[in-house]
Amino acid sequence: MKVLVIGGCGFIGSHIVDRLLAHGHSVKVFDRQAERFRPPLGGVEYIHGSFGDTMAVIDALAGVDAVMHLVSTTFPGTADVNPTIDVQDNLIRTLSLLDAMIGLGIRRILFLSSGGTVYGHPDEMPIPETHPLRPINSYGIVKAAIEHYLEMYRRTRGISPIAIRASNPYGPRQAHTGVQGVISTFLSRLRDGETIEIWGDGSVVRDYVHVADLAELCARAIVTDKIGPYNAGSGKGTSLREIVEILAKVTGQRISPIYKSARTIDVAQSVLDVSRARADFGWESTISLLEGIELTYEWLRAVSPSGSTPSVNSR
Amino acid sequence: MKVLVIGGCGFIGSHIVDRLLAHGHSVKVFDRQAERFRPPLGGVEYIHGSFGDTMAVIDALAGVDAVMHLVSTTFPGTADVNPTIDVQDNLIRTLSLLDAMIGLGIRRILFLSSGGTVYGHPDEMPIPETHPLRPINSYGIVKAAIEHYLEMYRRTRGISPIAIRASNPYGPRQAHTGVQGVISTFLSRLRDGETIEIWGDGSVVRDYVHVADLAELCARAIVTDKIGPYNAGSGKGTSLREIVEILAKVTGQRISPIYKSARTIDVAQSVLDVSRARADFGWESTISLLEGIELTYEWLRAVSPSGSTPSVNSR
Repeated sequence: MKVLVIGGCGFIGSHIVDRLLAHGHSVKVFDRQAERFRPPLGGVEYIHGSFGDTMAVIDALAGVDAVMHLVSTTFPGTADVNPTIDVQDNLIRTLSLLDAMIGLGIRRILFLSSGGTVYGHPDEMPIPETHPLRPINSYGIVKAAIEHYLEMYRRTRGISPIAIRASNPYGPRQAHTGVQGVISTFLSRLRDGETIEIWGDGSVVRDYVHVADLAELCARAIVTDKIGPYNAGSGKGTSLREIVEILAKVTGQRISPIYKSARTIDVAQSVLDVSRARADFGWESTISLLEGIELTYEWLRAVSPSGSTPSVNSR
Repeated sequence: MKVLVIGGCGFIGSHIVDRLLAHGHSVKVFDRQAERFRPPLGGVEYIHGSFGDTMAVIDALAGVDAVMHLVSTTFPGTADVNPTIDVQDNLIRTLSLLDAMIGLGIRRILFLSSGGTVYGHPDEMPIPETHPLRPINSYGIVKAAIEHYLEMYRRTRGISPIAIRASNPYGPRQAHTGVQGVISTFLSRLRDGETIEIWGDGSVVRDYVHVADLAELCARAIVTDKIGPYNAGSGKGTSLREIVEILAKVTGQRISPIYKSARTIDVAQSVLDVSRARADFGWESTISLLEGIELTYEWLRAVSPSGSTPSVNSR
């Protein structure tokens, strides 16, 4: 199968490309940047352009069987700053992508949604896919709206969509500038001898999934005709305090975080019920948090502290 | 209280203006058109402009205490044709309105949402406000996204929003060109000696609410500090076949509808649980369907068949 990975040079996208190649698929990457974690991969066709450039997206779609849509111009913690831009960049451009796919007769799309934000404050834990969508921030509102449109396009326009609701992905190649994920941000600061800051008292519970596990699920899911939402997490909750304990173990440092007042955009707990992905794809996360954080730290130490091209590629 | 009614010359807006005036409020109307159902009302300040013209909206907001947002450039049956325009015209412009309100220190907004589309295929009947939002068409997806943003703006920016989830409003001044409501469309065709067409077998059940009842709820709700969603319907379900029976009684005609294949955008049943509006506002619909359809037919017969300015104003 020939798969177009939109956002294929990014943190999650680059891992998905790895898994697609490992599964023997032909891969085309559309990204605004060149590979930044490694040299361009042999056998992969790269097209560089903006997701907002509809004609460039149409060119990239030519000849592919399926599309992985991993692009987000915003992060959960930053999208609220300007919801209008969030809607324009992510919701409207996704509608343009779907319209282009229909024009070219491409039906299959995997959309990377957000299990950490679409549900809002959960009624039950772990959270099943049937839980109401009550997003409390712009990132989640846009993801939920896109999921609704995917289902509408399925019913009325023949699109075959699957939405992977990722929990909190972490691992090698994640940005460590403070907006993308606590694990890489904390590890980067610890590597550089800096203190770490925690919003709230450290009791916030999240479901961390290693990016290689997430990528494996996406690679398995795209070739099927399964539709609708699938949670992708470890199924286990871990508090920030527990994360700090693991970080101390992995880095060998004594850690004294600075505690700041809690953010209104945070829900207290978020752990996903991943039984649907297990049942339909025989998938579950395989990399423990300790092992995953070790792999991430290993990668981070190989990257120069300035954040330039790393010299190794961990999984 | 000085209330800006955005869309105040429209079907629902004009009735809301009537009820606000009856309650003794000062009213400013923002609409792209002049009054088309009646001469301009004394004591009402009219500002004509496009909802897409942010500066015109800001001008209109000056000096008001609260905002009624009733504008929709699309209808449930037509929004699916171009979801991108639906998002641009309705979602993004609503975010601009909210940002303008914040800039001017105006907190209170009543948003006219859609109880007929935000829930999708309901799990229970009548449908309470706590039912998951699973809209199946673009109209409902945009309304649900706006509701989520209203709640986000409440929590993070001090907006005080209430969303009135109207069921199927009908009554005098509703367009009768086939996109806005079955009752006025059918009545208009019967008045003109034309046949009526029904999508499906006539078993589709809806909750019809007379526009004057809906307007009364909005006028009561805007002055309170109640927030969140409120269903606004009769609480009773009526099938299209039953509507046809009432139409036959009101018009004195024998009616033989033409049945066409069902539309994929329709849910089979939609009846709203209105106990929240009753408890918080002492409100319920007071105009029976028979009485309401009689009032609508009376108005329609006073309007020239070509649809030009009517000579009477029913409630």
